[in-house]
Amino acid sequence: MEFISTPKQYIDAVEDAAASVGKSVSFRGTVHRVRDMSDFAFVVVRVNRGLIQCMFSGEIDGMTKADIKDGMVVEVSGNVREEPRAEHGFEVVLTSVRILSRPAEQIPVPLGKKYLGMTLDAELPLRPITLRHPRKQAIFRIQAAIADGFAEYMISQGFTHIHTPKIVSAGAEGGANIFKLDYFGQQAYLAQSPQFYKQYTAGIFGRVFEIGNVYRAERHNTSRHLNEYIGLDFEMAYIDSMYDVMEMETGMLKYVIEYVQKHCKEELEMLGSKLPVIDKIPTVTFTEAKEIMLEKFGHKSKNRYDLNPDEEVMMCQWAEETYGSEFVFVTHFPSAKRPFYAMDDAENPKFALSFDLLFRGLEITTGGQRIHDYHEQVKKLEDRKMDVSLFESFLIMHKYGMPPHGGLGIGLERLTMQLLGQKNIREASMFPRDMTRLEP
Amino acid sequence: MEFISTPKQYIDAVEDAAASVGKSVSFRGTVHRVRDMSDFAFVVVRVNRGLIQCMFSGEIDGMTKADIKDGMVVEVSGNVREEPRAEHGFEVVLTSVRILSRPAEQIPVPLGKKYLGMTLDAELPLRPITLRHPRKQAIFRIQAAIADGFAEYMISQGFTHIHTPKIVSAGAEGGANIFKLDYFGQQAYLAQSPQFYKQYTAGIFGRVFEIGNVYRAERHNTSRHLNEYIGLDFEMAYIDSMYDVMEMETGMLKYVIEYVQKHCKEELEMLGSKLPVIDKIPTVTFTEAKEIMLEKFGHKSKNRYDLNPDEEVMMCQWAEETYGSEFVFVTHFPSAKRPFYAMDDAENPKFALSFDLLFRGLEITTGGQRIHDYHEQVKKLEDRKMDVSLFESFLIMHKYGMPPHGGLGIGLERLTMQLLGQKNIREASMFPRDMTRLEP
Repeated sequence: MEFISTPKQYIDAVEDAAASVGKSVSFRGTVHRVRDMSDFAFVVVRVNRGLIQCMFSGEIDGMTKADIKDGMVVEVSGNVREEPRAEHGFEVVLTSVRILSRPAEQIPVPLGKKYLGMTLDAELPLRPITLRHPRKQAIFRIQAAIADGFAEYMISQGFTHIHTPKIVSAGAEGGANIFKLDYFGQQAYLAQSPQFYKQYTAGIFGRVFEIGNVYRAERHNTSRHLNEYIGLDFEMAYIDSMYDVMEMETGMLKYVIEYVQKHCKEELEMLGSKLPVIDKIPTVTFTEAKEIMLEKFGHKSKNRYDLNPDEEVMMCQWAEETYGSEFVFVTHFPSAKRPFYAMDDAENPKFALSFDLLFRGLEITTGGQRIHDYHEQVKKLEDRKMDVSLFESFLIMHKYGMPPHGGLGIGLERLTMQLLGQKNIREASMFPRDMTRLEP
Repeated sequence: MEFISTPKQYIDAVEDAAASVGKSVSFRGTVHRVRDMSDFAFVVVRVNRGLIQCMFSGEIDGMTKADIKDGMVVEVSGNVREEPRAEHGFEVVLTSVRILSRPAEQIPVPLGKKYLGMTLDAELPLRPITLRHPRKQAIFRIQAAIADGFAEYMISQGFTHIHTPKIVSAGAEGGANIFKLDYFGQQAYLAQSPQFYKQYTAGIFGRVFEIGNVYRAERHNTSRHLNEYIGLDFEMAYIDSMYDVMEMETGMLKYVIEYVQKHCKEELEMLGSKLPVIDKIPTVTFTEAKEIMLEKFGHKSKNRYDLNPDEEVMMCQWAEETYGSEFVFVTHFPSAKRPFYAMDDAENPKFALSFDLLFRGLEITTGGQRIHDYHEQVKKLEDRKMDVSLFESFLIMHKYGMPPHGGLGIGLERLTMQLLGQKNIREASMFPRDMTRLEP
């Protein structure tokens, strides 16, 4: 019989070593790169967050520099001294090296180089090892910070964190783009969004958010779509209008940008990424957007229901040039192409109280006000020739009273991609799922 | 063209009103209960978090008390006065009432009563409305706090938050209990755990955690199993042994208990729940556990590979009576029934460096040290007559070097259930998925 109590304090080796100039330190990490300098070798050790330059000379613990290989996992001790040419301004003169684990084979990718320099097709099957590259790590530490900052802001605004099922009995977003599975003999689907559950819980907790997996069985292979992605979703009750939702998103984005700036300074520098400044975001209606594109760019839109990708780029260019904003809201999309739960504009029911947020030329959010009145929701289902009986479970909340409410969904990978200026969404997904990729 | 800037400040109506005695306030909420007192009526309004007692007398905005019905969504104004008999020590004397939304039908469940008093079978289909009951809300606010506290602690310990795919090409935990789906013509599965991805990313970021959906296609209908649940998972590299993982879990649980205590005081009081005190947690081996049960309870175990449910209860009783601990770790389970990625004990390879954590009579965690050496992992797969070629993608990380690492998974619903003393895990899942339930 023994007892287990609190964990050993976590050591961030880079900071810890940097603060120990003139003293000795011990830490664990993986040999990232060995550079032989004839008299000695630089052994760069990758710790949990960052790289530490160590100097190996002579014989240490029965080994010479030739015994140290990339990919070995080591525990080292040494004396810290200033070295302005090293990445962090110091290096560790090794006095002890213990090997904790050895690779079976030499790693086939150039982790030690500044850039990995591989095509996506070559890299993706090797992601469990290519992501060890500092520049790749940086992307996903920033992505983690985006989601963590989102959660922290939502909690600060009185939102309750929900965790909802992804195996569902019906698709919320319509269409055939849905994965099917057999659920103990019943036909089931993978959720296209947490829409129904966000609405249920907005009627329960008032304000809710979720960070969860979302599924779209879309048969296209583009640089901006994934078949499984992470949705940042929120829904809020007792709103005046969809503008409350847009204001909440603006506040959230400001907070997330600050959070990432604070927690991922080194990662942003490494990637050379410039975060946007958000003050206030210009907002135009769908109809105004089409007019602006005609006037400013001589662009005659052929898409009466949505914005095409090139139009998203145009509207962002307009917002940037006119208002210095990298973001622009487009509101009042044609109702016909918005989902059945979207509330129509009472003044002009051909348009829905629904919006997109565009950022650096790409839609990153769809949101809007939802129908809360039971009769209005039933009528919209009927008008669309949908089978109301299939929505019995969904309509319970409306039947017994729902507050006016609205919300939105943001694709985490898209937001990451746009913040970091990546060209392909697979760069912003650790283990992407597309039409041809099911592993790793 | 308009601009959208920051959101209106969030008002927590209960606290806000409580601080406004002698002044007037306005807020929005849903009519929770109307109690007619002949001269006037008490209108209890449910706001985002809590209930506010209001007094309606005479005629207000063209309405009398008879016009106010349960389930109406209202914006009210009134004067706040002390009232020791009211739940929060104050009430609001209404001066204005505006109806924002009306239910289509009278709600068929007694939301206004102290207890809902429904069987689970009757309640679950109506969850979108029964969860509006304050006692039901309380469960899931506490659940949200458990997950939020978990994330906050992990981040404080240098763990990176990961978000991994749930559509996978192979099951990590073995067995036939896995949901299958067609993925663009390929056979795919729903992840039984994030195991492979946690290990990959432990080799990348060192320390990782995830809060995500987990799938088990188990064909049993018990009070402690769900077919889709939320896993709290972490994995940490550069460990000395599995005891590092157990220490991290102990530190995490202490933090989570404090977090819940701090953020959900009213909810805990409402449910009469007593949180456990964690100082240090006793730990025994599987073999010792069987001996203890024989000595102390005269129990001759017939299960050579695992603990039966009644044995989990016995071990918890022992830990409580002997050490005053509601938790007990059991380590060194027989290797044969532990997964292929578990590291065996070098001193006695019949046992794995693997543990369970039992809490109030139920296993809430399985964890342990994983194999990091490539040859050891390949040999274990071969010894088990598993097809090594199917694990090529998984073995990449071992082949090119992995640090010693370990981790664990906790079922969020089980932890919630045990913390709150619930009898059925469906009480701790908002929208449970079991063999017969696919909606709401």
